[in-house]
Amino acid sequence: MEGTIKCCANYVPLTPITFLERAAIVYADRPSVVYRDVMYTWKDTHQRCIKLASALAHLRISRGDVVAALAPNIPAMYELHFGVPMAGAVLCTLNIRHDSAMVSVLLRHSEAKIIFVDYQFLHIVQGALAILSKTVAKLPLLVVIPDSGELVSIVGKSLLTSGNFEYESLLEMGKLDFEVRRPKDECDPISLNYTSGTTSSPKGVIYSHRGAYLNSLSTIIVNEMGSTPTYLWCVPMFHCNGWCLAWGVAAQGGTNICLRSVTTKCIFDNIAQHKVTHLGGAPTVLNMIANSPASDRRPLPGKVAVMTGGSPPPPPVLYKMEELGFTLIHAYGLTETYGPGTVCTWKPEWDSLPQDAQAKLKSRQGVPHLGLQEVDIKDPVTMASVPWDGKTIGEVMFRGNTVMNGYLNNSKATEEAFTGGWFHSGDLGVRHPDGYIELKDRSKDIIISGGENISTIEVESVIFSHPSVLEAAVVGRPDEHWGETPCAFVKLKDGYNAISAEEIIKYCRERLPHYMAPRTVVFEDLPKTSTGKIQKYVLKENAKNMGSISKKTANK
Amino acid sequence: MEGTIKCCANYVPLTPITFLERAAIVYADRPSVVYRDVMYTWKDTHQRCIKLASALAHLRISRGDVVAALAPNIPAMYELHFGVPMAGAVLCTLNIRHDSAMVSVLLRHSEAKIIFVDYQFLHIVQGALAILSKTVAKLPLLVVIPDSGELVSIVGKSLLTSGNFEYESLLEMGKLDFEVRRPKDECDPISLNYTSGTTSSPKGVIYSHRGAYLNSLSTIIVNEMGSTPTYLWCVPMFHCNGWCLAWGVAAQGGTNICLRSVTTKCIFDNIAQHKVTHLGGAPTVLNMIANSPASDRRPLPGKVAVMTGGSPPPPPVLYKMEELGFTLIHAYGLTETYGPGTVCTWKPEWDSLPQDAQAKLKSRQGVPHLGLQEVDIKDPVTMASVPWDGKTIGEVMFRGNTVMNGYLNNSKATEEAFTGGWFHSGDLGVRHPDGYIELKDRSKDIIISGGENISTIEVESVIFSHPSVLEAAVVGRPDEHWGETPCAFVKLKDGYNAISAEEIIKYCRERLPHYMAPRTVVFEDLPKTSTGKIQKYVLKENAKNMGSISKKTANK
Repeated sequence: MEGTIKCCANYVPLTPITFLERAAIVYADRPSVVYRDVMYTWKDTHQRCIKLASALAHLRISRGDVVAALAPNIPAMYELHFGVPMAGAVLCTLNIRHDSAMVSVLLRHSEAKIIFVDYQFLHIVQGALAILSKTVAKLPLLVVIPDSGELVSIVGKSLLTSGNFEYESLLEMGKLDFEVRRPKDECDPISLNYTSGTTSSPKGVIYSHRGAYLNSLSTIIVNEMGSTPTYLWCVPMFHCNGWCLAWGVAAQGGTNICLRSVTTKCIFDNIAQHKVTHLGGAPTVLNMIANSPASDRRPLPGKVAVMTGGSPPPPPVLYKMEELGFTLIHAYGLTETYGPGTVCTWKPEWDSLPQDAQAKLKSRQGVPHLGLQEVDIKDPVTMASVPWDGKTIGEVMFRGNTVMNGYLNNSKATEEAFTGGWFHSGDLGVRHPDGYIELKDRSKDIIISGGENISTIEVESVIFSHPSVLEAAVVGRPDEHWGETPCAFVKLKDGYNAISAEEIIKYCRERLPHYMAPRTVVFEDLPKTSTGKIQKYVLKENAKNMGSISKKTANK
Repeated sequence: MEGTIKCCANYVPLTPITFLERAAIVYADRPSVVYRDVMYTWKDTHQRCIKLASALAHLRISRGDVVAALAPNIPAMYELHFGVPMAGAVLCTLNIRHDSAMVSVLLRHSEAKIIFVDYQFLHIVQGALAILSKTVAKLPLLVVIPDSGELVSIVGKSLLTSGNFEYESLLEMGKLDFEVRRPKDECDPISLNYTSGTTSSPKGVIYSHRGAYLNSLSTIIVNEMGSTPTYLWCVPMFHCNGWCLAWGVAAQGGTNICLRSVTTKCIFDNIAQHKVTHLGGAPTVLNMIANSPASDRRPLPGKVAVMTGGSPPPPPVLYKMEELGFTLIHAYGLTETYGPGTVCTWKPEWDSLPQDAQAKLKSRQGVPHLGLQEVDIKDPVTMASVPWDGKTIGEVMFRGNTVMNGYLNNSKATEEAFTGGWFHSGDLGVRHPDGYIELKDRSKDIIISGGENISTIEVESVIFSHPSVLEAAVVGRPDEHWGETPCAFVKLKDGYNAISAEEIIKYCRERLPHYMAPRTVVFEDLPKTSTGKIQKYVLKENAKNMGSISKKTANK
């Protein structure tokens, strides 16, 4: 239209950096980050992040350079989420469960120029650098983060002589008058998140400033996070940038309660001490809370909203959490969708349903949040939408501004993931008549038994509802007759009656079609990733090693 | 970064149309629009808007065409906010207080292809078309909106024979399989809002899909509008598209309670009947509510958040509203900033202050909302920021994505408004030490008396605090000695003791520096715009016509 002008008065690239700048004015004197006896205000955090950005620039970090970090949820990790983008660089947070070999692979793949490391994980990075030095001429600079703001930690001292840095001293180098390097284009990268891939082909998911801005706002709205929330950090910040709340909490001038490690005692103590209003956690964390000993528990100081996601939460766990007084928000997404992409938006008319019906409804993955354009369940070949019948299984697909830019240095994988103009999640699900989606399985996890699809999530959910069961995972075990049959790995609760495999099988047969009930039940501790997901590939390997069930057994 | 792909899977132009599409799935069966005995669900509203868009396309409306509307807050007006953009067109809502002459000027300036008109304002548009027909060959098509969904109203019948349309019949022409014309670029125009300008040079403010999307989300967050709010429409939708909530309420699947006219009885009745959770209103509406007769009032059914803005609310009115149980949110902006641009974000530490101190803090215009980049008070010549001292007056300036595209067909005015890369508001204000801004005056309203600036808002606020005063406005009156001196126009409350001009002057002198107290007080009804703003230019004219205060009088 004639009269339109596009200039810096009316067009500014979207970026979460704005959230921090605004918080430094609006919430200047309010606590931003709290960790043990450390307490910063938003003015402090803003200044520390500017100094961090300035110091990075001083270390010749340029636009688009990758800066890696290996740390738990400590204040420095929070500051890196703003300081690195403010230097124009891309933050690559690594999983603290990785070993040196994996870290070396990711440092090489990302071409990180610097790595920030928490003192506790220094040996991992030193190991990684040793591996890297065999093939790479120029190693990333090392910045060691000591604990609790001590200027030089014991581990750091000797290291700092060899051209490396200590976090607080690095900040001291920074200048407050540094001119923040805002993105030139809002689709410029802000962070890099590696999915739990293998060493052979790591997938580095690229997030943009635009996507991060929009997903942060959407996550705030989904969480009904009003002004000045108090957020307890149980979701690792290295995981999808803490489901984008590393930025989102700044948007609302909230207080970040940092935690080095997540235990139920820590959770309840921090909730009570800091009057926590919001927290997030994978279903495993919820399960920990739901089954915590009474001695760890403390009364909630008020409404505490808990956002969960990462894997489908079993209804019994949701039910127990609500019994404890928590308000549950169930979100779903993948690293490729900046964490939360859908939410099981609650409808007031469901309030009057029995509580187990409510938990069942709430365990569905729901509908796209405001920042996403569309979520659909499609036939991955024809790209046709499945009917909204709650039965027909298809692949969950996403489309919108909160879908990744792509996989770093892997255009082929990006193209494949975006085939047909949708992001293919690899998750299988159904669409209910009300439009809500529900996951049935990862496409690689679903069991095909005698030609029938068996959703392992459905079987797990039934096993979970048994009062003696603490955790359960179901995978396919080779079967001569049926191809494969369900095999359950179960961990029982302490102090409950031990039950037999037969009892579990009988319990399932009473609640599921016969063919869906497990034929094998193994009692053991379940292997997990650092984000609390059960490592099904380990269990599948175990089930495979058990050997096929013979025809004779199968026909029993 | 290598691996990045920009495609429809991860980049979609931002537009509020998404909100409606999402609401049609998430909130399908929940009430969207309620008006008297009409009740639509979000599924209905979505379908009606698609049909409206389809019908517009059928009438040869193309991308970028302007579609005008002259109507109060009725369901059709709400539907136009989505239906018109879904046809790729630009919605131009006109002020229902305009006369035929003004409407004809705006129809010509906007080159509107169609005008939708509520039956009550049909004569205005007919008059406008008669004027227009003298100079324009092709008149806009007329679509008449009858009341309460009657198919053909009495007024419509004769009209419809001459190639015009009736709203519901037009919708019937539309097809549900119409392919929505989404914006090609998110900066494409979505609406056109004329500021209360003069007929000689109307200023048509162009809003974009991007700005509307971002301002809607920001307004939701500012209002702490959770899922499924119930919103009472007291702010005219023709005014900044109802402060962007015409789109925003859809984003949260809320219920829009429509009102043809705003009376205190209507407000209280609707709040009680529909369990309203949110409403908005100019300070005049608040004043009406605060001074409503007891017979109009009904108890509030729960928390009712009231967003106010448009002109600075006098602290006594804020105070009274909170006494009545309303929760006040004070926002500030201009048509050029999509309505709300700043908000007086509340800090918990203010809760313990005395209530009048709270009202004083709350009457400040505050800080930019999340969608805006920056608000500052600057010297309009040097563009230097004023010190944060709460005293130095400068011009309020805005920068960010929720600032208009420009003025339609007036690049010169756009360039002037954007001088130096900031939008110049024409409002004068100060910045307090805590970074919050406070308006002092419109630059054209400030009184300069003996070289001192007098904020008319400050004087009005003192007069307002007098228990007998219902409304007050202060303008400059020519003065031989001082240049000009404050002249107050005051409307007293019914049933209170009549007070004299001298009493008002004395009351002000006890509370303000001597030079700021009015020298003239006139008791009369105050002229207002349809959005409740007092028309100061009329009062200034009146004050001028009183003649200069002579030196002798002034020295008294």
